This record gives sequence, structure tokens and C-alpha cells, in this order.
Amino acid sequence: MSSKRVLSGMRPTGPLHLGHLHGVLSNWLKLQEEYQCFYFVADWHALTTEYENPRRIPEFSRELLLEWLAVGLDPSRSTLFIQSAIKEHAELYLLFAMFTPVSWLERNPTYKDMIKELKQKDLATYGFLGYPVLQAADILIYKAHKVPVGVDQLPHLELTREIARRFNYLYQTEVFPLPEPLLSEVPKVPGIDGRKMSKSYGNAIFLSDDEKAVRQKISTMVTDVNRPRKSDPGDPENRCVAFQLMKLYLTPEEQQEVIAGCKDARLGCVECKRKLADRVVEALRPLWERRRELEEKPSLFEEIMASGNEKACQVARETLEAAKVALFGTRWF
Amino acid sequence: MSSKRVLSGMRPTGPLHLGHLHGVLSNWLKLQEEYQCFYFVADWHALTTEYENPRRIPEFSRELLLEWLAVGLDPSRSTLFIQSAIKEHAELYLLFAMFTPVSWLERNPTYKDMIKELKQKDLATYGFLGYPVLQAADILIYKAHKVPVGVDQLPHLELTREIARRFNYLYQTEVFPLPEPLLSEVPKVPGIDGRKMSKSYGNAIFLSDDEKAVRQKISTMVTDVNRPRKSDPGDPENRCVAFQLMKLYLTPEEQQEVIAGCKDARLGCVECKRKLADRVVEALRPLWERRRELEEKPSLFEEIMASGNEKACQVARETLEAAKVALFGTRWF
Repeated sequence: MSSKRVLSGMRPTGPLHLGHLHGVLSNWLKLQEEYQCFYFVADWHALTTEYENPRRIPEFSRELLLEWLAVGLDPSRSTLFIQSAIKEHAELYLLFAMFTPVSWLERNPTYKDMIKELKQKDLATYGFLGYPVLQAADILIYKAHKVPVGVDQLPHLELTREIARRFNYLYQTEVFPLPEPLLSEVPKVPGIDGRKMSKSYGNAIFLSDDEKAVRQKISTMVTDVNRPRKSDPGDPENRCVAFQLMKLYLTPEEQQEVIAGCKDARLGCVECKRKLADRVVEALRPLWERRRELEEKPSLFEEIMASGNEKACQVARETLEAAKVALFGTRWF
Repeated sequence: MSSKRVLSGMRPTGPLHLGHLHGVLSNWLKLQEEYQCFYFVADWHALTTEYENPRRIPEFSRELLLEWLAVGLDPSRSTLFIQSAIKEHAELYLLFAMFTPVSWLERNPTYKDMIKELKQKDLATYGFLGYPVLQAADILIYKAHKVPVGVDQLPHLELTREIARRFNYLYQTEVFPLPEPLLSEVPKVPGIDGRKMSKSYGNAIFLSDDEKAVRQKISTMVTDVNRPRKSDPGDPENRCVAFQLMKLYLTPEEQQEVIAGCKDARLGCVECKRKLADRVVEALRPLWERRRELEEKPSLFEEIMASGNEKACQVARETLEAAKVALFGTRWF
């Protein structure tokens, strides 16, 4: 395993679904094999948008950690922790604030976009403006070398690099490495109605759904609307939402069989989706199993959480200490 | 003694002089008799303007605390502490940031003034913009009821009240009292050249000056320039800088004698300033004495500092805990 560190986080704003599994978590699982990974529940970041209604953040945070473990993230290899348990993030955010020009934050392209997008929320807050400063603290306090990001988040990471560069330059130090992006391809995961899977669209298959719910949701997935009868030939690759999900759960050979059977009007949609449901359930069953085991041992879960926080805290403290020595020229509080 | 709490702080940006003594510290000494006082060294605030050259902040911070003790602030009655030793300030700053509109900060009248005034420094930083948010955390984390301020700082305190109000409203709580200003008259302390006493004007009498330096500085103080010879009658009330300082160190009767002697051309400036110097030295001698005692016992000083930090930390922790329970509806990290 490389000694290089990876950092990534998720905001605890609700239950996870297949979109998160294929978009983020499967990538985290791969990275876990190769790097020293730090994965955190970004509960302070959740406050930037949820400050008017923050009561469910603790519950969602525990839920998130539970799902991560269920998916197979291994607390003996990766450091899994809760952001707000590591106070050092707040202190480094404060220190970085002192030399970060407001103009860097205002020109952040996602800032004004998000304010427009989330019009129903009042996001013109000081905390929202400083989101990238807190993010820089999250990343740099673990001296992460690599950060998995989507293309749209590249400007945020560039800001983290700018902040690291400015700190190192101002205080003539090399405390902070400049983290590099790990760009990963994110597969498109359709919701049952064909739009992007999302909690707010009501079209999601959640990791915490049970078998019955999963089968029921998949049975209602939209198929080729130009094929009202089984005897009509279909075009699954271009017109079937269920087929988009099959690409993630069926082997290439099985996908070929589906295409052939649909185009020949031999294979019916009900039967076809039942096969998909079998596969999804099969894939989720070990997650459900691990989740059930953890839920039966709440003290084990608490221990895992405490020990992850402890591990993260130790690294964060060391970095912060080194940063403050660079800043003040001596040990100071 | 009232159970009401007072909070105030000073930025550790250099040695204290008579301007600080009469403008701030003598008021703190009075308040100490009446209230539970929390006085803090605002080293994080010093970073907002000194981030390019922060190396002397630790030294200035210790120096500040030493002077406070020398002046007579009593660590058994007042809580004297260093801001950056109490990490809870940073966490509360972060939490307040989440719901503080940027517009509140931009309309802060001192914000743009100071950016203009300190043109040689680049103050358009995120930390400088958020100065009043950190200040609100400083004040509210001790649930201070009263804050001694000058008229020019009233808008800052109003912002603290707005933040307290918003927190209490959003989370349906009464965790934070709304602090009230304690307006105090600040006497004018002239520097030896007649301008306002200030380190940067090079016209200051420092508390750490020795007797020789104090006498030498006072002997060069500007007197009535229209009275080149002792035999010319003078006008001390309107034209003598030294007389401005006499108002703080001589009794009303003695001041009358000086006025009479000067107007009658009986009392010479050299003799007159020698008397002033005697009084200033007399007033400073107990400070020098206490300072020397403390410098001879560095471990006692360390103990006082540690115990002040400890006392402050305990109060800060309790308040933060209550604030987070109000925010999250449950105990959370």
C-alpha cells in the first residue's frame, strides 16, 4: 500500500442510495486498497446549507458511517471519522481565514451558482462564502496528497492548493503538500423514473431499503414506452431506463442477451426486470447483512467511531502543531 | 460583587503605554471591583492585521498579561486568559459563521474604514471580514452581560447582539444573553509631542520604561511655545502639552497652583515638568515593583496563565455544550 494519503468526505444530509454507491463509495473501496484513506462525515459542511434545520444531522451522520461500514470500508485500513469531533479543523479554518483574500472566494464559480440554484435557502452567509476555506483545512490538516473530485469541483481543490501555497510562502515552510485531484469517471445511475437518482426526486433505491422495497421499485422502472406489448420489438439501449441500471448489474454477455431478446420481442419487461431485481438484491444482500450485524452490536459501532475519531485527531493535532510553529516561530497554544 | 459578567480584550501588538493605562486598564481595574470580569489577550484577532509578520505575537501576549498583573488586575478575582488557548472560540466562530449574512459584515462601518486606513496592509481577507463574528464568539461564549466599549465600537457590539438574537431565534433557545455596552469616558492622553499617545508615533511613555526613561521623556514634553523665557507669562490650559498629562497626575489644587504660577511667570517649565515626572514615577513605581517580582518568579507567572486559561476554558466549554444541544437537539461532538 502506498504511503500517500487520500482524503474525501460526504455531507450527512440523508440516506444513501445506489447513486452514492456507484458514484462515490465503489471508488472509495478501490482507493482503500491502494492508499492511506481518510474518509469523513462532513457534518459542519452540512450546516452551511442546513443551518435552519440541523436537528437530523447527528442521526444522518451515524447512518452515514454505518452505511460506509456496511459497504465494506474497513476501519482497520481507512480512517473513518466525524468532522466536528476533530476541533483542529475549526482552528485551522480560523488560521487560514486570516490570509485568504475574500476575492478568491467570491470568484469561486460554484459560489454564485449554488446561491442561485438553492434559491429557497438563504445561502449568502459568511460560512457559505468560506466553505472552501474549511474544505482546505479538512484536506490539509491530514496532509492529503490526493483528493478524489469530479470535474466541477476542480476549482475548489485549486483554492485548497492556493491556500497551501500561500501558507508555505508566508511562513517560509513546507508544512503543507499541494494535494492533487484524482479524477474518476462517475457512471450515470438512473432513478426509477429515468432522471438522475436523487433523494429529492423521490426516484431513489436506498441502500437501507429492504428486499421487498427494492423489488417493488425496480418493477416500476420505466422501460421502452414504444413497446406496449411484449410482442412489439424494443430498443433497450436507447429507450429503456431499466437497461441503464442493468449495465451496472449484468455481465456484458447477459446484457447482449437482453438486447437480443428485447429486439426480437421474445423477452418481456416484467421477466427482464425481475432478473435485474435479483441481481441488485444479490449485490445488496452482503451490505444488509453487515449492517444488521453492526446494528446488533451498538457498542462495537460506538467503538469503531471513537477509534476512527481518535486516529484522525492524532494526525490533525500533529499537523496543526507544526503549522503553528511555522506561523509563530515557536510553540504557542 | 455582582454576578454579572464583563468581557474585554486587548490585541497583543506591542508594549503598553500610558494611553492604554488611562484609556483601558484603569477602567478594567474599576470593573474588577464590581463584576465577574473576563479579560483576554486577543492573539487570534492580532493575526487579522499581523498575519504577514506574526512571529512576535507570543512574546507580546506574555508581555500583555505581565503588564495586566503589574497594573493590579487580580487573577483570583478576574479571569485573565489567552484567546487561542481556548479552542472553543474557534468552534463557536465556525457555528456562528453558518447563519451570519455576509451583508451584515459588509455594512459594518469600521470594515471599509479600516481597509482604507491601513492601506499598506492587505486586509481584504476572509478573516478580517469575519472579525465581528469571532468577536461575537469571544463575548457570547462567556455569556457576558456587559462589554466596555468606545462609541466607535458600538456597531460591533450591535452585531454581536444580532448574532445572539439570531441564534436564540433559529434554535428556539435562550442560551445567549444580549450583551450591553458599558460606555466609558476615555481621557485624552497626549504623547510627548502633543499628538495622541501611540507606539507608531514614537511619542509614548511605556509602562515598561524605567525611571530614567520616563524622566527623560517628560523633560522633552512640549510646553507653551509662546513662552520662550521663564519671565514670559504662559497659558498652560490651552497651550501646554505637559499640562494635559498633569491633569491625570496632579490634584485639582496642584493644577491650580501650576496655572497660577505659569500665568504669573513665576513657575518655570523645567521645574514644573520635574514635578510631573515625580508624580508619574511615583504612580508607576508599584507597577514596576510588581512586574519585577513576577519576572523573578517565572514559574508563578506560568501558573497564573495556566490557571486563568483553565478557568476560562471551563466556562467556554459549558456554554458551547449548551449551544450545541440547542442547535442539534441532542449531545453531539
